[in-house]
Amino acid sequence: MQPLALTMGDPAGIGGEITVAAWTALRHTGPCFAVLDDPARLRALAPGIPICEVAAVAEASAVFADALPVLPIALAAAAVPGKPDGANAPAVIESIRLATELARAGAAAAVVTNPISKATLYSSGFAYPGHTEFLAALCGVAGREIMMLVSPELRVVPVTVHVALRDALGMLSAAAILRAARTTHAALARDFGIAAPRLAVAGLNPHAGEAGALGSEENEMIGPAVAALRAQGIDATGPWPPDTMFTEQARKTYDAAICMYHDQALIPLKTLDMRRGVNVTLGLPIVRTSPDHGTAFDIAGTGAADPSSLIEALRLAGTLAGHRASHVAAD
Amino acid sequence: MQPLALTMGDPAGIGGEITVAAWTALRHTGPCFAVLDDPARLRALAPGIPICEVAAVAEASAVFADALPVLPIALAAAAVPGKPDGANAPAVIESIRLATELARAGAAAAVVTNPISKATLYSSGFAYPGHTEFLAALCGVAGREIMMLVSPELRVVPVTVHVALRDALGMLSAAAILRAARTTHAALARDFGIAAPRLAVAGLNPHAGEAGALGSEENEMIGPAVAALRAQGIDATGPWPPDTMFTEQARKTYDAAICMYHDQALIPLKTLDMRRGVNVTLGLPIVRTSPDHGTAFDIAGTGAADPSSLIEALRLAGTLAGHRASHVAAD
Repeated sequence: MQPLALTMGDPAGIGGEITVAAWTALRHTGPCFAVLDDPARLRALAPGIPICEVAAVAEASAVFADALPVLPIALAAAAVPGKPDGANAPAVIESIRLATELARAGAAAAVVTNPISKATLYSSGFAYPGHTEFLAALCGVAGREIMMLVSPELRVVPVTVHVALRDALGMLSAAAILRAARTTHAALARDFGIAAPRLAVAGLNPHAGEAGALGSEENEMIGPAVAALRAQGIDATGPWPPDTMFTEQARKTYDAAICMYHDQALIPLKTLDMRRGVNVTLGLPIVRTSPDHGTAFDIAGTGAADPSSLIEALRLAGTLAGHRASHVAAD
Repeated sequence: MQPLALTMGDPAGIGGEITVAAWTALRHTGPCFAVLDDPARLRALAPGIPICEVAAVAEASAVFADALPVLPIALAAAAVPGKPDGANAPAVIESIRLATELARAGAAAAVVTNPISKATLYSSGFAYPGHTEFLAALCGVAGREIMMLVSPELRVVPVTVHVALRDALGMLSAAAILRAARTTHAALARDFGIAAPRLAVAGLNPHAGEAGALGSEENEMIGPAVAALRAQGIDATGPWPPDTMFTEQARKTYDAAICMYHDQALIPLKTLDMRRGVNVTLGLPIVRTSPDHGTAFDIAGTGAADPSSLIEALRLAGTLAGHRASHVAAD
């Protein structure tokens, strides 16, 4: 398997620090990765860490145990922790673009992205609501991306994501639920190595609407979507009462929960495990994961950043890429 | 302290079984309680359990270690597990009414309620959306009741409760948030023995609205409510991003979370501890708790019912009544 391609993220955020910490944690166990970043800024950030410039991601394998492999992308301005600088936006964007190109070409096994600051990129003409939409556009599958969050105890897929709760209610539809569930089912089989994936579909309302007394979406939209999935041979159940479907006992009965809105998915995931959540983008032709946190400008440079989520994102990317490769080989 | 008054709940549900199990668990440690139920049906349900009919709740203290104290309320029809019978609705209602009267008169330290089936009571003219509203009406404080859920790890208060999520958005207001938060603050100080209660107020939208980009309620309603609480000397913070405010680290920073809708409160509570959640009604002149589950007609009579939540409800009622008594004594 090729090494993973890790993007720099915003160089004023914690990306550099947690990248160095992740390399330290993974250098002897893998998965192997190369970071697409400015070698000079990493050397300044972590003077004691051996860094090896590579000309191609594939070269990372030979040096990974001894040095952090860096595929160089030069910054236009010196990176200052906590002070994002629009002058560096082109390098941040190029890191994402190149990592995606390398993964699509097979030169990298997967893309793992460090956190970016959208506000900083907008000033440079970046026209996407976020990282994920940019990746989908780069891959030519705009609008087909689906966000999954993975922790050691739970996988969740919110059907609606970064919109006001009021707007999420208007955007929900049987078609949106079906799209999210089908993409999730395919990814669980292909990338997660689950032969017969089981999906639990959440209700929207308290007690899943209590047979219509507390809302109509379960009867009119979610129930029919579950029936349609089952008719297609997908092992989907629900709509389940949202408050009881994330208990330890309930979690054993499914491989992923299809959720109706952002916090219905994220509250149980983060309540159970704040540190090790990983964001996975489904529906792309490449494997892409990212840590489930932001740039953390407020603590950048202080040494307080927790690398756990990035480490898990790298591990999961390795696992998913491995499954996908063997799945393709078996086809 | 007087004994607690425990209602029978629907006699076709699991109330009788879990009452017997709770007495077995608590007989030597307390808190002491009397159940307002039909002695004959309890004897039939648990032939090996000593039962003592009492003429007043106060008599329970002397016998509690040796027998389950029962203040008799006769059923009209034989109770059949799993088969609710409208003929018994008057007895179910009388059990609640009498327990409330006894608590208001000081003859019982608190009311603990077993689960009822609203559908069965409606046929008998019961005109309330639920247990809690009936109790508030009996106490002459209709509309002032506030639901709190308590588990060993978390206390949550949903500002909107049993309504469709779409309707909950329309019902939210700064006034409703203030009312819930003030009632919670007073109860934490008086009944929970917390000298300086700390409230964490949840946002409504993903990331608490991200400064208005993902919804306006935080800026227009929730933020101003938090400011008003602080101006009144209440230690309230927020609006917090809903998905990160229930982590172990975050939970240490507050005594109760004020939540905007049912599942925002109930998902973290039940995900953390499904079995030991207790429902507490704040805003009443009496202490009232109940187990956080329903009649469970589907398993009634099978011996599968888990008494944990009722046991915790009885324990918490004893603790709250004790605090309230000492608080009153200190005034």
